[in-house]
Parts: sequence; C-alpha cells; structure tokens
Amino acid sequence: MTGMLEATLRQILGPKGWVASADARPWSRDWLDRYGAPPLGVARPASTEEVSRVVAACHAAGVAIVPQGGNTGLCGAAVAGHEGAVILSLARMASMDAPDLASGTITVQAGAVLASLHTALEGSGLMFPLHLGAEGSAQIGGLIGTNAGGSHAFRFGMMSDLVQGLEVVLSDGTIWNGLRAVQKDNAGYALRKLFCGAEGTLGVVTRAVLRLSPQPSHRQTALLALPDGGALVTFGRRLRSDAGEFLTGLEFFPDLGLSLALRHVPGLVFPLESRSEWYLLVEVASTSARVPLDDILQDVLEWGMAEGLVTDGALAASESQRAAFWRLREEQPEGQRLEGPQLKHDISVPPGRIAEFVAEGANICEGLLPGTRINPFGHLGDGNIHYNLTPPQGQADFGGLGPDFGLSLARLADGMGGSFAAEHGLGRSKVALADTLRDPVERDLMKRIKCAIDDNGILNPGVIIAKD
Amino acid sequence: MTGMLEATLRQILGPKGWVASADARPWSRDWLDRYGAPPLGVARPASTEEVSRVVAACHAAGVAIVPQGGNTGLCGAAVAGHEGAVILSLARMASMDAPDLASGTITVQAGAVLASLHTALEGSGLMFPLHLGAEGSAQIGGLIGTNAGGSHAFRFGMMSDLVQGLEVVLSDGTIWNGLRAVQKDNAGYALRKLFCGAEGTLGVVTRAVLRLSPQPSHRQTALLALPDGGALVTFGRRLRSDAGEFLTGLEFFPDLGLSLALRHVPGLVFPLESRSEWYLLVEVASTSARVPLDDILQDVLEWGMAEGLVTDGALAASESQRAAFWRLREEQPEGQRLEGPQLKHDISVPPGRIAEFVAEGANICEGLLPGTRINPFGHLGDGNIHYNLTPPQGQADFGGLGPDFGLSLARLADGMGGSFAAEHGLGRSKVALADTLRDPVERDLMKRIKCAIDDNGILNPGVIIAKD
Repeated sequence: MTGMLEATLRQILGPKGWVASADARPWSRDWLDRYGAPPLGVARPASTEEVSRVVAACHAAGVAIVPQGGNTGLCGAAVAGHEGAVILSLARMASMDAPDLASGTITVQAGAVLASLHTALEGSGLMFPLHLGAEGSAQIGGLIGTNAGGSHAFRFGMMSDLVQGLEVVLSDGTIWNGLRAVQKDNAGYALRKLFCGAEGTLGVVTRAVLRLSPQPSHRQTALLALPDGGALVTFGRRLRSDAGEFLTGLEFFPDLGLSLALRHVPGLVFPLESRSEWYLLVEVASTSARVPLDDILQDVLEWGMAEGLVTDGALAASESQRAAFWRLREEQPEGQRLEGPQLKHDISVPPGRIAEFVAEGANICEGLLPGTRINPFGHLGDGNIHYNLTPPQGQADFGGLGPDFGLSLARLADGMGGSFAAEHGLGRSKVALADTLRDPVERDLMKRIKCAIDDNGILNPGVIIAKD
Repeated sequence: MTGMLEATLRQILGPKGWVASADARPWSRDWLDRYGAPPLGVARPASTEEVSRVVAACHAAGVAIVPQGGNTGLCGAAVAGHEGAVILSLARMASMDAPDLASGTITVQAGAVLASLHTALEGSGLMFPLHLGAEGSAQIGGLIGTNAGGSHAFRFGMMSDLVQGLEVVLSDGTIWNGLRAVQKDNAGYALRKLFCGAEGTLGVVTRAVLRLSPQPSHRQTALLALPDGGALVTFGRRLRSDAGEFLTGLEFFPDLGLSLALRHVPGLVFPLESRSEWYLLVEVASTSARVPLDDILQDVLEWGMAEGLVTDGALAASESQRAAFWRLREEQPEGQRLEGPQLKHDISVPPGRIAEFVAEGANICEGLLPGTRINPFGHLGDGNIHYNLTPPQGQADFGGLGPDFGLSLARLADGMGGSFAAEHGLGRSKVALADTLRDPVERDLMKRIKCAIDDNGILNPGVIIAKD
C-alpha cells in the first residue's frame, strides 16, 4: 500500500522532488532533536499543483502529511509523530514576486526564507516588520503555521496581523485561492486568520500576500542596565507612553543570561561599565528625518536614571555596535544551550505583570529543584517571556522534573491571564498541557474545527489536537 | 411551543429583560429599514449567565437567536431573517472594568458603546484606537461581530487585531471563557480571531479584553484639495513613506460628496478657497512633544504642491476647526442619504489601485445607468472605498438595477485582489453575492465551520451562510 503511494509520489514529483526514507534524516528530526519518527519519505514539490497532487494521493492512501518549512520550530510540529508519514517540505517553493510598492504588499511562496524576504525588500522603501532569531532559516509558510511573533510584534503585529491573503491546499488536495491583497475583507469567516497558527493541521499554506510597512529612515539603539523586575516594567511603560510610535524593539534579559552568553558564545562584547540584575535593549526608529530620536530617548533615560530605574546605559554609536547590542540578546538561547541541558518555556503574561511572574516563577523553581538557574528573557512590549531553565550548578539534569516545571509555570501564567504557548505554538510538546489547563469548551471547539476541515485527520495528526 | 419558550424566557430575564413582540419595533428593523421580520420578542439579559440560559432555552426549543448590539450595521445582520426569532440585545450589559494601565488593556462587556469607551479612557494616557461614524451607538459586541474597521484601521488594525480575549456563549448555552489578556497566545486555533467577524453566527460575544494604545500628546489635521485620483494615490503613498508612524487618519471624499453634504447638512463649513475633484483629510499624531508634526506635514505638503498633486490646503488652527474638517468627511453618508435613494457598496482594493477602481467603476455605472452620481469616499490607507451611488439628476431611483450595480462593482474589486465586503460584513444583504463571486471552496470551508460550531443552526440563520 505505502509502496504504491511512494511510486505515485515519485511520479508526481520527479527525481528532485522525492527523498526516500533512507535519506530523509536531514528532515526527520526537529531542531531540538526531541521529536520525529522515520517518515515514508520527504516530498519536495516545486509548485502548488504538485502540493495538491501529493496531498490528494496521501489522502486517498490514508497516509499522514507533515508540512515542513525551515524546521526551526521548538514544539515538534514539523516532524512526524508516527512512522510512515510523508514530510512535505516547501523549501523548493521559495519564489517572491516584486513588491507592490504603491499598495505596500508582497506575494511570496511558502518556502521563502524570512531573511531572504528582508534582503529582497532592501532599498524598496518598504520592510516586512517581523524579526526573530531563526530568521536565517525560518520560512514564511512555517511562520504562518506557527503565527510567529518575535521582537517587533508588540509594534507591528504577529504573522496573522501581517497576512492579507493566502493560498492553501486542503486535506483532499483541493486548492483554496484566498490570495486577496487587502487589509479589509470581511466577507465571512476569517479563514486567513484561522490558518495562521494552525500548524499545518488544517491545510498546507503554499503562498501568501504579506503586508509591508514603510522602512524607517533612521533609528537608534540603547542597551540599559536596570536593578530589578519592577524597574523593567515601570520603565517599559514610560517608554511606551513617551515614545509609543517609535518603539520597534524592547527586549530584556537577565544577568544570568548575559553570563552564559559571554561564557559560551565567542565574540560577544558587553558595552556597559557595570553589571546589574537586568538589561533592556531599546530600539526606536522613524520614517522622518525631522524626528530627534536621540533627544526623545535621552529624555526617557534621564527620567529613568533620576528615578533609579536605570543604572547604566549606552547608545549604539555605529551600525556594528547596534549589531553587537542585538547579539547579546539574540545569543541568549545559544549561550544557554551550550551550558548544557535546559527546559524551555514560552510564556506570556500581561506586560505589567512580568516582574510578578518572574518573582513567583522563581519561588516555584526553587521549590521544585533548589538552585535551578533561571534565564527569563524576551519581549517587554507584549509580556512574552522565554522562561528557560538550566540545572543547578554541578547537576547534570532536572531529575525528571521537566513536566512539573512545565505545568506549574503554565498554571502561573494562566492565572495571570496569560498563556503557556505564547509564540511557539502547541506542536506536539504542549498538547497534553493544553488538554490539562485549557477550558474543555475551548479544546472541544478546536476539535470540532479540526474534524470539520480535515475530516480524515491526515494533516499533521497529533499536533494541536491529541491523536485518538 | 413558542408560548412555552416565551414563558421560560420571561422567567429567566424578569420584567426588565423581556420585550414582547408587540413592543419590539425599536429592535426589529435594521438601521436602513431594509431588513427585519417580527421577532418573538427581545431578550435583554443583564449578565453572561442570563445570556447562557436564554440561548440554552432557545436551543432546546429550536428557535433562532439574533444577537444585536447598537443595530447600526448596514448589512442586516442584527435583525431577524424570518418571523418568530428571539432578538438578543446586549445593551444592558455595558459595564467596563478600570483599564489595566500597566499592561495597556481594558475588559468590557459586549453592550458597552464605543464612544463611552473612548470617554472612559480620557485622561488615562491610553486610548482605544478604533473610530467610525456610528461610534455614538455602535457597541463593542457588534463591532467584534462585524470585525469593524473604520478610519484608524490602516494604522492600528481592525477589531480582530485589537481583541486579546473573549467570552462567548455558544449555541447550546455553554460559556467559553477565553478572557486572556495577552497579545501572544498561540495555544491552538485562533478562536478569538474566528469569532471576530462571525456576525453572531458562531456564538454570542458577551465580554472582551481589548488592547489599548498610548494616547498621543499632540496632533495636527489638514484638509487638502487634489486634482485627480492619481494624485490621491501618489500623495497618499508619499505620506505613508515620510510620516508612516504618525499617520492616524487618511480620509478622502470627492467634490460630489462635498456638494451633497454642504447642501443637506446644516452647519458645515468648507475651509478652502478653491474647489477641486478630491479632498483628503490627513491627521498626524505623536506621543512625543519633541516631534515637529507641523514641519513634517509641511514638508510633504510642499512636495505635493510642487508636484501639482495638491492644489489647496488648510491646517486646523484649533480643536473646533479640526472637528469641522472631520465633519465634512463624516457627514458624507448623511448628505447623500438626504439627497434621496442610494446604493451603498463597501469595497476594498489595494490602496495603489484606488484611482483605477474609481475610473473603471465610473465606466461601469455610466454603462448601466447614464448620469448616475457617484460618491466614492473612504479610507486611503487601506483602500476601503464606500462607493455610494445617487440616481441621475431628476430620476427617483435606479430602475431596479441595484443588483447589477452590486455585482459589477463587486467583480471589479474582486479582479483587483480586493473585496466587495470590506468592513461592513456579509450580513443578510451580501450572502448571495458571496455565493456568486467567491471560490466555492471558500464558501464550503465556511459552511463546515458553521455546521461544526452551531450544529443546530440556531445562531443568526441566513447571515454569512445562506439558509437551506
């Protein structure tokens, strides 16, 4: 049966488009090497029509399909949950139309890499305002599937705010052409929003119309030291109220994270004179050369220093210094990874409660495993904390307490009106957590939607909704 | 049977909460008096629990429910499609929590009026950035149901971009508590986005957590005259690139609309020395007093005048002059209504194609009914054109050509990658148009979602999806 399917897929895809199971290793495991059963093979279609034919063939054979973009996800959604599924890589479908400069949109295929999109737009006067650590590998289709957020989301929105139109192959191979290019389209249910964040369980995104923003003409970046979590929240609030429309970055990380990054990642430079409990990377930008960004930033900094909220700080004097500031933040995951085993938690809380979460989270961690080293870093503007843990000094691991950490911290976020799955999705790794913590009414609604749209259950089974 | 239901509803709701059929007239017809069959009565619950019990009782009796907010919608979605339905008015559920200043959110009940929300936030340093003509009557629940847009949407997003959490009563009376207060929540399907724009066909929104923005500290408003549609598009694009983050309003209207408004609406003043083909209302605002808004605006204006794109203009010298400028735009619908019969079309096209749509639309209208007077006004930033028609001079009506206008203009928008239902929704009035113009695959997806979530079909039947 699967032999027949494989022959059919080979015929549809040609020699470049099919990777047999034996050679599928580069696609079959997730980035953290935690998930991924051996697939039947990897389909690498070159067009929407080929995707449609591949999906229809799998549908007819009852074989599961796992859509895969850059495979940079952290929840295991882009690799197979059981043996014999077909991984559907969009990597060969990476073309980008010329941007529509007059309307501020661009149409791209799902396999386009985010960083390539940024590069393609250079000099056009427009930008795509989504930025995240994995942008050199992450593909548009995967970013849509996980409704990616990143460092600019508090200002420009998440992926679902930036998608105006979509082309999606549905579970039986039917192609839905929803490639409209307008922000305002209220002709019925918000399908384009529903497919964003559906992690490939409702359809395979093949193409998208993305909304662009004017490229700022100048920007300024500061790295600041702050004494405690309360200062972080108070100062962040002041920045939002005094420089609301200029803020494009508002990223925080703690001293532990800085230490780990400086210890393990070559070439990092810490530009301040003194260390502190927290650091904040502030970036402001404007389209108008008449806006005195330095003065605006300086005003808020002086206020922060007078109030004792900011203890040290530096403005980037050059583009390379700006890049160096950003690297301190962006190498947080890498620094911690190189320290050894870790537990990652992708939490969001209302921004005003970040300090409270950090304090209560520390109590929970200390109660579960005294000495656990906590590195909460992330996005101050939207309350998204990558609350990542390293075992206590001298301990090799968490002694099997991973699920306890996960559940306790998720409960804490939940109780604050936040989320335990902020921007990485549920994937395979957080389905049980969702079934435990979320209102059964909500989970039931999601099951109904899944059954209604993927009635045979062949699209990424086990992701978002538990497999029966 | 319905007598028993009425008795049950009276018992649930008490004397203040039930309006019998004979007295239901104020709720039973839509704002344009085009839709609305006599209801069984009007349920006016005072709490989410009462909504839940009302919906459960109707569900058990198999009686249709029509959720109603301020009843300002233009597509007939808030009144009954057939006799004997229960109108569910949320007007008594209008409470608003204190805003969460540190996190920038506010929790409100569905019946809160938009203008009351604006008032409640005055002086808080925060604002809710959704503005539209009906804001004195439109309620939050209805704005969510129609995914309202309005004049600030190109900058701050539509309702679905501004809703962080929702409480919804489902078709069997079950309450879904999705009242989270974070922007980033990717724990499964985007239910909060799906209920936005569902026009009461998937559930009854009872409460929402809304995202607020910093209140600007100063603003400037200009009224400009432009010679043609091409100038409108080119100048709008320059404004977006030079003053991107300051733009909060970018509204256009033609000379015909100005004439109708000046003729019929008392108290309007036209502040420019010369008339032109088009007018553009530009508003810029900043949170920082250091931003020289006047200079920034002046730069672009001088460029526009030098290029021949702007022929006249005035800056508002006072708050009352600002209000007078805005009234010229906001009284467009009223001026045209007072002229006599009209056909309204809620079109969106990619902003760069507005001039093209206006030119080709004029050809279509002239072909269908020579002399038809066209008043295309709306939102330059997102390409949303309220393409409203008045019969030729001396003619009382459109001679039955309404559907032909609707279909031809919708096709034109569709072919440009736009929408024939931009911000008013489908309601009852555009379902047939959607069935005609939209991909059957898309319509089928919507039917599947409707059947999956409202399996008995009692929530607003005939809206979005045709009744079988």
